[in-house]
Amino acid sequence: MAELHQVCAPLEFLLGTWQGTGTGVYPTIEDFSYAEEVSFTHVGKPFVAYAQKTKDAVTGLPLHAEAGFLRPQGDGRIELVLAQPSGITELLEGAVEGRDIQLASTAVVGTASAKSVTATERRFWVDGEVLHSSVAMAAVGLDLQHHVVSEMYRLS
Amino acid sequence: MAELHQVCAPLEFLLGTWQGTGTGVYPTIEDFSYAEEVSFTHVGKPFVAYAQKTKDAVTGLPLHAEAGFLRPQGDGRIELVLAQPSGITELLEGAVEGRDIQLASTAVVGTASAKSVTATERRFWVDGEVLHSSVAMAAVGLDLQHHVVSEMYRLS
Repeated sequence: MAELHQVCAPLEFLLGTWQGTGTGVYPTIEDFSYAEEVSFTHVGKPFVAYAQKTKDAVTGLPLHAEAGFLRPQGDGRIELVLAQPSGITELLEGAVEGRDIQLASTAVVGTASAKSVTATERRFWVDGEVLHSSVAMAAVGLDLQHHVVSEMYRLS
Repeated sequence: MAELHQVCAPLEFLLGTWQGTGTGVYPTIEDFSYAEEVSFTHVGKPFVAYAQKTKDAVTGLPLHAEAGFLRPQGDGRIELVLAQPSGITELLEGAVEGRDIQLASTAVVGTASAKSVTATERRFWVDGEVLHSSVAMAAVGLDLQHHVVSEMYRLS
């Protein structure tokens, strides 16, 4: 196990694998519930790898996934780059304060076949033993609004 | 293990984990050699998850990583969305022909702190038992040109 890069120290509270459940809403779809697993890992370099997958809470079938990298800038600012199987990439910038990371998109770009997403806001925060994750999204012509929120517990 | 989605059938030759070695060149850096591991996995949905990491061939220290998703379009066309810890996301489009996937970027977008990359071309092809992977890149103001190539064998 490599030593954590000093620039990643503010993200140490995230490291590991977390599992839990969440709920999703959006005006164009039915409300849904899901099981979620996220992992934050490092290799001693100045970034933290992030991977996420969700399953339908009822059927157990896979729903969403995403993968990317958190890039702490050494001054509290954080960048996140993200790829999604929906054909969308996101670049976000924001800050970490204590155990709370809040990010807003600077660019959301999709492939020719992807649905239109124009902006996102993401937050990861740990309160006690619980990791909360939330995403707000402006998609298919609608304004930025709450989309998903989840609560997870550390698995390892 | 979920059944492979029919739209992913043309990518079945990639599925699994591959390990090998590669070499990299670019006018602005010293030539380098690396050990590489890539994995292509699926969950029964119409995409294939791609993850890659490399280590310095001499020191064993981690070099590059990337993560993303291949999106077959059902007609031979393939999209790839990719996030990199260097702060860059790539969207690529191309085609699969037999056991050869050739892709060119439609968008390369970086965070405020990322180095400038303006275009890439990527190819994955299997010849006999060997997976070849290559990347051409236009970066730091230079024209699109060969950057890395590797040869890997299937681990699982």
